[in-house]
Amino acid sequence: MAEPIFDRLAIIGAGLIGSSIARAARDYGAAGEIAIVDASQQVMARVRELGIADDAGGDMAQALKGADLIIICTPVGVCGVVAQAIAPHLEKGAILSDVGSVKGAVVAQIAPHVPAGVHFIPAHPLAGTEFSGPDAGFATLFQNRWSILTPLEGADASAVARLANFWTRIGAKVETMSPEHHDKVLALTSHLPHLIAYNIVGTADDFGEQTRSEVIKFSASGFRDFTRIAASDPTMWRDIFLNNREAVLEMLGRFNEDLSALQRMIRRGDGEGLFDFFTRTRAIRRSIVEQGQDTSAPDFGRR
Amino acid sequence: MAEPIFDRLAIIGAGLIGSSIARAARDYGAAGEIAIVDASQQVMARVRELGIADDAGGDMAQALKGADLIIICTPVGVCGVVAQAIAPHLEKGAILSDVGSVKGAVVAQIAPHVPAGVHFIPAHPLAGTEFSGPDAGFATLFQNRWSILTPLEGADASAVARLANFWTRIGAKVETMSPEHHDKVLALTSHLPHLIAYNIVGTADDFGEQTRSEVIKFSASGFRDFTRIAASDPTMWRDIFLNNREAVLEMLGRFNEDLSALQRMIRRGDGEGLFDFFTRTRAIRRSIVEQGQDTSAPDFGRR
Repeated sequence: MAEPIFDRLAIIGAGLIGSSIARAARDYGAAGEIAIVDASQQVMARVRELGIADDAGGDMAQALKGADLIIICTPVGVCGVVAQAIAPHLEKGAILSDVGSVKGAVVAQIAPHVPAGVHFIPAHPLAGTEFSGPDAGFATLFQNRWSILTPLEGADASAVARLANFWTRIGAKVETMSPEHHDKVLALTSHLPHLIAYNIVGTADDFGEQTRSEVIKFSASGFRDFTRIAASDPTMWRDIFLNNREAVLEMLGRFNEDLSALQRMIRRGDGEGLFDFFTRTRAIRRSIVEQGQDTSAPDFGRR
Repeated sequence: MAEPIFDRLAIIGAGLIGSSIARAARDYGAAGEIAIVDASQQVMARVRELGIADDAGGDMAQALKGADLIIICTPVGVCGVVAQAIAPHLEKGAILSDVGSVKGAVVAQIAPHVPAGVHFIPAHPLAGTEFSGPDAGFATLFQNRWSILTPLEGADASAVARLANFWTRIGAKVETMSPEHHDKVLALTSHLPHLIAYNIVGTADDFGEQTRSEVIKFSASGFRDFTRIAASDPTMWRDIFLNNREAVLEMLGRFNEDLSALQRMIRRGDGEGLFDFFTRTRAIRRSIVEQGQDTSAPDFGRR
């Protein structure tokens, strides 16, 4: 196996993403040693049982000693607090990164706490499932998925390259962009779809018991796809919407405009308009499948 | 194998559903002979190549001769025209059914053309994929899926039972309800989700070329699930929205109210409200998986 890219990787937060990075870093030999710290005693106990870290003692100073890559894998809302707590233990030359789904707010929260000589390089792997916690993680989660790095102006190029190598080693494809651009793109590709999915499931939930049970019973007709997305971690998603407010509200405004237009077509019985609209959207699906971003198997291959 | 339930099954329209019924009826021995008629010469040629019918000559009178079950599997918008065309060939005692995703409008279009002595029993199998045409069908499409029958008042009970047996034989679970109730339930579980999926994909498509290519590239972060639904057949969906207008607009109104509430929470930074909302929707997903309406595998099991 190729040489490890980092001597010691410290992961703060052992959820789906953190525990997957730990497993992947070991399986693909991306780090010499792996330390995991989580604020929950229960999660720490589970991490020890799973055996996915070399150091799962739970002591922050100990975990960070000698760490040349530190990845904050907590919900976005607490990453500033975490950065402040770990700052005294960060060693010169180390790379500090994260996996947050928003980048502008994360930069604003973390950057002030980063000591001189430490390279802060924000990152966001576009990977995950609707499950949470250390048991939900797996080593191949990042295979063929994008990991977006959003280095700040004047970032050390060799440090950025080293972090990119780490992600490539564990299976990801790496792209680099500004935090602002990231937040706009993700508002459209991820945050808005999740908001809409949460909303439609909530609408169904608002009906009485009888309707709700019928909705569940007959969910295979379309609804169930939305419920998978709307089953994602509530804390994570609360933090995303609070921290990417402007971009999400802008995309939502556009979505609402378009929905009003569709609504009007239905009300007026504009069959031609509906047909054209529904034809246009098919082409996007085709491109996604062609670019290997999703399976072409019917129903995601779930039969 | 058990005795066939019908001597001769005639299927009008060989799309995903019609061709799947033909395959299933043969594989599970639900009909003695199977005839298929489709308005498209190209589709008829393909049906002959696929060998999924005993009679694929394409002559309507011939196909309906001796048929004791006739299922209209065309888009909803033309089922009235089809009913009118086939009416002279329907034999006394035969059962005429359909597979339309809306039932009130289908009843209104078909019922006036049904000759005396023919049992008209509308049906809707809740099954399908994002693909269309005779090549997309398969015999197991209806396994463990619901088929909803919406018999009219005074319908012949033994004819209803016989049609229910047919659906059970080819793998479906059968439920009976009124056309009006069907249309309300489906507006929520199917029509609204499809409308929303079409809309969000349309919103992305409205951006310029660069954003569109980034949306496709990074679609795995949530967006791609919507594109699958928004890749469904445009003709079929146009007809559904035109023919279930009232129920769809009512559900859309509720959806919009709820979305405004979520929008307000984001604007005001109401983290508690968002967290509560996102927690509530998780429970619905759990019920759907528990009731066997979807896989519990992460990401629909697509890795």
